[in-house]
Amino acid sequence: MPKQVDYAERRERVVDAVHRLADRHGIEGVTLRDVAREAGLSMGAVQRGFRDKDEMLALALARVSARFVERARAAAAEPSPGALERVLLDVALLGEGQRAEAQVWLAFVARAAVTPSLAMTLRDGHPEVASLLTRLVAEVAAGSGASVDAAAEARALLALADGLTVQVLLGQLGRDEARRLLVDRARLLAEATRPEAGKRAGPTG
Amino acid sequence: MPKQVDYAERRERVVDAVHRLADRHGIEGVTLRDVAREAGLSMGAVQRGFRDKDEMLALALARVSARFVERARAAAAEPSPGALERVLLDVALLGEGQRAEAQVWLAFVARAAVTPSLAMTLRDGHPEVASLLTRLVAEVAAGSGASVDAAAEARALLALADGLTVQVLLGQLGRDEARRLLVDRARLLAEATRPEAGKRAGPTG
Repeated sequence: MPKQVDYAERRERVVDAVHRLADRHGIEGVTLRDVAREAGLSMGAVQRGFRDKDEMLALALARVSARFVERARAAAAEPSPGALERVLLDVALLGEGQRAEAQVWLAFVARAAVTPSLAMTLRDGHPEVASLLTRLVAEVAAGSGASVDAAAEARALLALADGLTVQVLLGQLGRDEARRLLVDRARLLAEATRPEAGKRAGPTG
Repeated sequence: MPKQVDYAERRERVVDAVHRLADRHGIEGVTLRDVAREAGLSMGAVQRGFRDKDEMLALALARVSARFVERARAAAAEPSPGALERVLLDVALLGEGQRAEAQVWLAFVARAAVTPSLAMTLRDGHPEVASLLTRLVAEVAAGSGASVDAAAEARALLALADGLTVQVLLGQLGRDEARRLLVDRARLLAEATRPEAGKRAGPTG
């Protein structure tokens, strides 16, 4: 089936191009034409593969999500407070090489806020990540025998991660500081479930 | 100076129009022409007032910011745990009538992520809000005599508020649930600075 193979490979090339463009200057002003040029494809080839920019963006985000879920599952496979931290840092896309992924996410978010079908794509991925984080939070809390609303904690941590991603992209916060805030929050959670939480003294490590 | 008065009033009308359009269907796809029509002005009038869409958006955001800072100052004028909660809810633009403000903010954020001059506008407003929140957090902590890194707490709360704004706009989280998560976080902060924090039991009120 050489035709199908070409088609899949072409979509891969387009997604690669979207990520490279996002890394260089965001994707707000990027057109199908820009993507075709970057991917080394004709406009016709891109147009046959994608209805419009939103569909292209959805595929680029799908790759970000797939990679993220894969990493999160791997990190969650060995439950520990460290796993919670690693998954959170990964959700927040705060790694050195993740700026392109963060840009793709933010561009998608901005369009999804006004395009219900795109918002649905983002909502579809949300429950798995939320339940994965909920499990990790519950495990951290169980370690100290305290009762915590793990689902609520997980949702708050997810929102914090999203907010940090935005602030780092805007330069309101440095990447290192954002990482520190997120890790501190995960550690406070582990500490706050212990009797000495009030003091917030000493590292958890 | 009738000419200057006209000019200021025209800018007001344009900003009103941007907010109404944002409320109706976001501002991602909104053009100068759309705004002119909504404002009941000619394209020429709009073009004389604004270099481009980004400048228009910057003015619309400036109004969101100005109103917010005004409300935050008023809430902070009577320091209490309640004041911290009120300011946070306001930062997160989670009020019934604040969807348009939230849309303007998100659209601006998405463009600012790729336009350094816009990012600077957002960064300029950040320190005042951060220092106001830092003061409120410090007051809440001082009430229980515990030591907390108030600046770091304030930054984390700001990021949480931003993340919640995004998740509510996307429909990943209900507005009421987002409000509850934010208020809980502010209350946990007040509790966590007390010896019984480990239990997380009982309301703060």
